[in-house]
Amino acid sequence: MKFCSNCGSSVTFEIPHGDDRSRHVCNECDTIHYQNPKIITGCLPVYEDKVLLCKRAIEPRSKLWTLPAGFMENGESMEQGALRESWEEARLTLKNHELYQLFSLPHISQVYVFYLSEIVSLDFAPGPESLEVQLFRESEIPWEELAFPVVHTTLKDYFSDYPSRTFPVRNSTVTRND
Amino acid sequence: MKFCSNCGSSVTFEIPHGDDRSRHVCNECDTIHYQNPKIITGCLPVYEDKVLLCKRAIEPRSKLWTLPAGFMENGESMEQGALRESWEEARLTLKNHELYQLFSLPHISQVYVFYLSEIVSLDFAPGPESLEVQLFRESEIPWEELAFPVVHTTLKDYFSDYPSRTFPVRNSTVTRND
Repeated sequence: MKFCSNCGSSVTFEIPHGDDRSRHVCNECDTIHYQNPKIITGCLPVYEDKVLLCKRAIEPRSKLWTLPAGFMENGESMEQGALRESWEEARLTLKNHELYQLFSLPHISQVYVFYLSEIVSLDFAPGPESLEVQLFRESEIPWEELAFPVVHTTLKDYFSDYPSRTFPVRNSTVTRND
Repeated sequence: MKFCSNCGSSVTFEIPHGDDRSRHVCNECDTIHYQNPKIITGCLPVYEDKVLLCKRAIEPRSKLWTLPAGFMENGESMEQGALRESWEEARLTLKNHELYQLFSLPHISQVYVFYLSEIVSLDFAPGPESLEVQLFRESEIPWEELAFPVVHTTLKDYFSDYPSRTFPVRNSTVTRND
């Protein structure tokens, strides 16, 4: 950030009065420009003993497999965002959404949220950001071709929880070295 | 947003190519300025059969009672943010944090997260954003003087869960009319 989005003047990076960390500050119109973590919301879509993954058509991690997810938008709930992304990336119709995983990624100032959702019908298809969408049994998961560590953890936890059919909400922090 | 924070030119509000909703776009340097929901993270601090509330010293809702919480900062986890806010607002030392409540508030593009945390020592005290901090039994809660609906719901749920000492993670959406 170099310029004030309110008045167009140059901003400085300084600790505002009464604050304890540096912010982008406009000394012309006195606006403090806060920057905060972003939420990525998505689903773990399941069908019988299988999970659905999307092969990414876009960077980063193009051609690797991921769960349908994306940036939560203003004006929607976390669950609405997860369902919107599942439609956009895999044309999925889902039901019985349960919150399942939350990850904080402080090194990139992101929070990932995944809902566990049941696939209603098998007429899913790749959206514009996916090359393929496919159901996988545990033994078929392309573990070496997953796009993100949070996808790996979510799938491992799911297949670990699956025998008991009990899926407690999990909340963890992923650091740069994980 | 009126000016591009990258180059200082005027921005337009239009649907970028390949997108499906309007964004602030700079046609000078081709930057798309995404705006996304913010996370408010905090704690429900408990001690024996009591909960701790803070009387707000600042607007909005000055002089009403709330749980210690605030905007999650870049570079921290949700839990770190909750503990930081609990220290800043009530000088609390806490242990055994468990994720307890998540609320989406789409009408104001916010997500609230509360951890259930045990108070370690009773030497808490108001921080600069609090007028008072105080422990309350259920019968003592100032229900008519709570700052936010999410605080009301979190306290109701807590005292409903308390007899069983079982506190499942709850995830809900609060609309403007709730």
